[in-house]
Amino acid sequence: MTCVPVNFEEKFSRFKELWSPKVVAQMNDYQFKLVRVQGEFVWHDHPDTDETFIVMDGELEIKFRDGSVTLKSGEMFVVPRGIEHCPVAEKECRIMVIEPAGVVNTGDTGGDLTADNDVWI
Amino acid sequence: MTCVPVNFEEKFSRFKELWSPKVVAQMNDYQFKLVRVQGEFVWHDHPDTDETFIVMDGELEIKFRDGSVTLKSGEMFVVPRGIEHCPVAEKECRIMVIEPAGVVNTGDTGGDLTADNDVWI
Repeated sequence: MTCVPVNFEEKFSRFKELWSPKVVAQMNDYQFKLVRVQGEFVWHDHPDTDETFIVMDGELEIKFRDGSVTLKSGEMFVVPRGIEHCPVAEKECRIMVIEPAGVVNTGDTGGDLTADNDVWI
Repeated sequence: MTCVPVNFEEKFSRFKELWSPKVVAQMNDYQFKLVRVQGEFVWHDHPDTDETFIVMDGELEIKFRDGSVTLKSGEMFVVPRGIEHCPVAEKECRIMVIEPAGVVNTGDTGGDLTADNDVWI
């Protein structure tokens, strides 16, 4: 047994890039990804899977076509599959995203903010 | 869209029982369960799934037959499927467990600490 805990602070200290998910753990075929976010992302959806957001530090708004949810540190939300959403953070915010391995951050929308997948730290 | 975030503090304020997982969210067929723990649990494993532990507050030791890992607030660990483990917390500790819906907290071991499953708060 490799018995090293994942420490979120320590992992976040290893990178500064925004909108660039870093995988820190995997459970079955699901991955835990730490992400620094600031500004507005792109509208997209994930047709085949729900997607979990947990805010570790800061504040994140997730806009939907018919509403929005605002998450503060210590809060989470599960975006259902197929629901278009657009994450926004006025100030830099640190989040954890949990979703199946292989899910692309921009869904089918693509564009400049599409990050490399499966990057572990 | 129902747009209410899950606030961990608020959810924990709703129950006091130990070793009694409360479901707060579901992503596909996986559930997020908040648990208050103190003392020593029972040795068990989950032959069909990994199991994720995140410590929200306090300190949790997870003992294995050949070692252990100690998690503090802001740390996580994924126990691989089939690995016998026994969670222990000297003082009360608040954790989140993430695993497929239907997983029983004591695995195949059973006993008095077996909790009702799929209890939402």
